[in-house]
Amino acid sequence: MEFEVKTSYKYELINLTDQIQKAVEEAGVKEGAALVFVPHTSAAIITEEDEPGLKEDFYSLFKEFEKRTYRHPDGNAEAHILAGMIGHSRVIPIKDGKLDLGTWQSILLVEFDGPRQRRVTVTVLPS
Amino acid sequence: MEFEVKTSYKYELINLTDQIQKAVEEAGVKEGAALVFVPHTSAAIITEEDEPGLKEDFYSLFKEFEKRTYRHPDGNAEAHILAGMIGHSRVIPIKDGKLDLGTWQSILLVEFDGPRQRRVTVTVLPS
Amino acid sequence: MEFEVKTSYKYELINLTDQIQKAVEEAGVKEGAALVFVPHTSAAIITEEDEPGLKEDFYSLFKEFEKRTYRHPDGNAEAHILAGMIGHSRVIPIKDGKLDLGTWQSILLVEFDGPRQRRVTVTVLPS
Repeated sequence: MEFEVKTSYKYELINLTDQIQKAVEEAGVKEGAALVFVPHTSAAIITEEDEPGLKEDFYSLFKEFEKRTYRHPDGNAEAHILAGMIGHSRVIPIKDGKLDLGTWQSILLVEFDGPRQRRVTVTVLPS
Repeated sequence: MEFEVKTSYKYELINLTDQIQKAVEEAGVKEGAALVFVPHTSAAIITEEDEPGLKEDFYSLFKEFEKRTYRHPDGNAEAHILAGMIGHSRVIPIKDGKLDLGTWQSILLVEFDGPRQRRVTVTVLPS
Repeated sequence: MEFEVKTSYKYELINLTDQIQKAVEEAGVKEGAALVFVPHTSAAIITEEDEPGLKEDFYSLFKEFEKRTYRHPDGNAEAHILAGMIGHSRVIPIKDGKLDLGTWQSILLVEFDGPRQRRVTVTVLPS
């Protein structure tokens, strides 16, 4: 299953939890895991708290990577470096047909080079 | 399957390998993978060598993130930033009913905001 | 399934995509995910663009970690720190029997302490 997300800024954290939960319910798997993946080299997936101040803190840290000197020709090396290290996916457990996330955990798309149109794929793996 | 871990310090690396191995054996899956997940936003899971000097090296690096200025209101932004980037889970291959780790690899809970009581879930996915 | 990779430098990014694709085809799984894992504590797996300039940018960043003072006794603490944080594995979706990667995504072994002989395991998990 897959869906598209439109980003609006260079750096952005977008909450995908409801869309992933819906994909899990449609798959009908009661116990297992959901692989959330972005097929892009300048975006990532994380699980974290969806809190405005924390988002700003992430963006400030990402922005510092712009100050480095890079050899990658497209002017967005920091986006690739950060996405590569953080990772293009997260795997979330499924229990009783629902994402088994903690109280404060959301699944977030991390945009490092927006605005862009991003594709997200969800693969459900049964236990 | 899940279990609880009590942490004692702000930063701590706690070896979970034996507990995860036991969960894999209880699941009875011979070939597949184990998803080890912490449902918390200020803790992470890594695989690395369980060596006292290296643990101190990780703590020193984490501690440097405290020096930054943050907007997240709870005074533990560095814990969320680090946990979000490193990730709340790792997926480990299972071969012949055992975790197929390298000689020096252990599965470690990373505490970034202890002392706390942490929950760890293990989801076994068959090949 | 597993295979060996010989690395030639301290830091190196080696494209494994074709070998992983072959492993997926041999497994005969049409829908699911591939867990790519290195059973070593000073190497990692990432997905990123395979571009010479970007590789140099990664190596420059990794090299800066050598300047820190470490307590780990083997003189390669930076390799463990980086590998532990980035992670020893990535999980890639499989669709229609093929890795469902983005246009610019390759699966790359990250060597942090070469030259060495590295083992890579591929575990295919069906949907």
